[in-house]
Amino acid sequence: MLGSTGSIGKQALEVIGWFPDRFKLVGLATNQNIELLEEQVVALSVPFAAVADLAAAKEFGRRTRESGVVCLPGSAGLKELASLPEADIILVAVSGIAGLAPTLEAIGGGKTVALANKETLVAGGSLVMSAALRRGVQVIPVDSEHSAIHQCLMRGERRDASHLSLSRLIITGSGGPFYGMTRDQLQEVTPGQALRHPTWQMGAKITIDSSTLMNKGLEVIEARWLFDVDYPDIEVLIHPQSIVHGLVVYQDGVVIAQLGRPDMRVPIQYALMFPERAANRLEPLDLAGAAQLTFAKPDLETFHCLALAIEAGKAGGTMPAVLNAANEVAVMAFLQGKIPFLSIVKVVEEAMSRHSVIPSPDLDEVLGADGWARQAAEHILSSRW
Amino acid sequence: MLGSTGSIGKQALEVIGWFPDRFKLVGLATNQNIELLEEQVVALSVPFAAVADLAAAKEFGRRTRESGVVCLPGSAGLKELASLPEADIILVAVSGIAGLAPTLEAIGGGKTVALANKETLVAGGSLVMSAALRRGVQVIPVDSEHSAIHQCLMRGERRDASHLSLSRLIITGSGGPFYGMTRDQLQEVTPGQALRHPTWQMGAKITIDSSTLMNKGLEVIEARWLFDVDYPDIEVLIHPQSIVHGLVVYQDGVVIAQLGRPDMRVPIQYALMFPERAANRLEPLDLAGAAQLTFAKPDLETFHCLALAIEAGKAGGTMPAVLNAANEVAVMAFLQGKIPFLSIVKVVEEAMSRHSVIPSPDLDEVLGADGWARQAAEHILSSRW
Repeated sequence: MLGSTGSIGKQALEVIGWFPDRFKLVGLATNQNIELLEEQVVALSVPFAAVADLAAAKEFGRRTRESGVVCLPGSAGLKELASLPEADIILVAVSGIAGLAPTLEAIGGGKTVALANKETLVAGGSLVMSAALRRGVQVIPVDSEHSAIHQCLMRGERRDASHLSLSRLIITGSGGPFYGMTRDQLQEVTPGQALRHPTWQMGAKITIDSSTLMNKGLEVIEARWLFDVDYPDIEVLIHPQSIVHGLVVYQDGVVIAQLGRPDMRVPIQYALMFPERAANRLEPLDLAGAAQLTFAKPDLETFHCLALAIEAGKAGGTMPAVLNAANEVAVMAFLQGKIPFLSIVKVVEEAMSRHSVIPSPDLDEVLGADGWARQAAEHILSSRW
Repeated sequence: MLGSTGSIGKQALEVIGWFPDRFKLVGLATNQNIELLEEQVVALSVPFAAVADLAAAKEFGRRTRESGVVCLPGSAGLKELASLPEADIILVAVSGIAGLAPTLEAIGGGKTVALANKETLVAGGSLVMSAALRRGVQVIPVDSEHSAIHQCLMRGERRDASHLSLSRLIITGSGGPFYGMTRDQLQEVTPGQALRHPTWQMGAKITIDSSTLMNKGLEVIEARWLFDVDYPDIEVLIHPQSIVHGLVVYQDGVVIAQLGRPDMRVPIQYALMFPERAANRLEPLDLAGAAQLTFAKPDLETFHCLALAIEAGKAGGTMPAVLNAANEVAVMAFLQGKIPFLSIVKVVEEAMSRHSVIPSPDLDEVLGADGWARQAAEHILSSRW
């Protein structure tokens, strides 16, 4: 498990704890939260641990010297953990572009990948999916929307035979805390307001991305790679109740949808157990007790990040990596109170406009574009705000 | 196609007309609507025709003597049509218990059965499904709710591998024209009011059954046989918009649903083409333009037919056949103005209370129970009203 100390990682440990006979934890990894990592490896008797931050890794090694835990330091350590011969499934739940290289490593090692890291597919979708296809490896999404579509499309162990007659995919989104607001109303919103998500409990970065709809945009790019469907056939619908997570529309007009309570433990369990399912400790969805379900088209003018992401996806090559990296920098600046809410999209747009796309990038070129975009965004920030 | 002159039959002919390269009509059958049958066989150059009513069959034979159409008379003719060596798929769209024997005949002949006739499974579910299992024949439902569940459970050509971890099935119903009414309000309703269905265009009998919720009850019994799921795990939810037709709930809390416009041509096409899908001429579902979707538990006290049907299903054996036959007699009496709306359920309940269940009936015993229940219901009607 890469990223055991984050929001998804902690929930994944909970899910794994429900099924002690089914799972055996071989390794955990964190960026630098070594206090929690130490607790986890001790409590769960995990033999391997990786710490990406080198200083933190050194400290972690010192602390756990007596325990027999093998510590793998640095980004090389993450890659080593992702290819441990003892591991069958790698859950990639680290945040940021740091997920890409270990994911490729896991695929190279023939391991099933449960993917909770958006950047891996946004920046490296072509690399990852072609490697998975070559190696015959399954990449199972953990994102609730993609998990939903995976569940609509794939039953048992194989792709729905009617995949060829698929018409389009629909990704739903709650609309975030600012759903229905105008650009004028968005001028003054604060990080505190943006962090109050109506239906999902998530980390700060993704919660801001939900409020700008950039999160939906990144999800559209992910869906394009996961399900091999072109952009015109991927639709986003605002569904404020967060009950229907994803839908598949077939050519005959039939729509298959996946529904459930907004709880990440459901898609985590699905990804870890696929193609099996098992009873768990979660409260079932009560449709009769649920409020009405509604759907609406997103407002692409007010929430322009979504349009921008689709544009980046269509441009292809290194452009989605640039979109993603510039957005990360801009969101961080917004969270730190350095720029207003509506400037997030401006920073991203400006970085994209300065970028010369490399059409079929290799891993180094993807990481290079990511680094370039971070610098470009910082430069835009310092020159403008 | 058994029942080409009824509502489902006519729509099936339309669907078949969309795909001239895919389907070849081998035979059509009617009970006695020989005018329309003649039109159909002539227009579509169908080589075989069956007419169940013997007098009508004779007249049909006389009319079509010159045309080269082979006329198969009587119920034996229906069975012969259902086992024509030229036929791969038999669409059973006749109404009433008359569908049972030809369905068994089609299964015996190894043909895929597209089943639009409720009585076949309500009265003969055990017979039909065990024969289909023995013969390795697929029974694909045409009813929109069961088609929906079939689509949620089965992808490609095989049952969902996660079928074992299925928790329950949900059949939706619009609630009919009297949804939300009290028993007092139902005292005075007329056949005209009961025939005004809010979302589906159907025949008179099934529209009345929709208004009493007997239709949902019959569907619960059908679902029990089609999907091999026990009664406590089949739920009915009122969904007035008729957009979500059926849902499958898994043990992990996930719900898979099938959505579409309320149009029987969709499940007809699905059943005839399974496991393939193809683009058709129907307007797609516009979720963003749709009203809200709502779900509620049915009122089993006011709409007691639903409870009664589940009771009959649980009693098993010949009891569902009795429920169905007594209901048919009672609905006819209501349509003819002979009894008030709320007496339909009383006739059925009384007939059921007089019946001694035969636990594992053969075809003759099922047909015998059907005949007995008709007589019993007539007797109840004449002695009470």
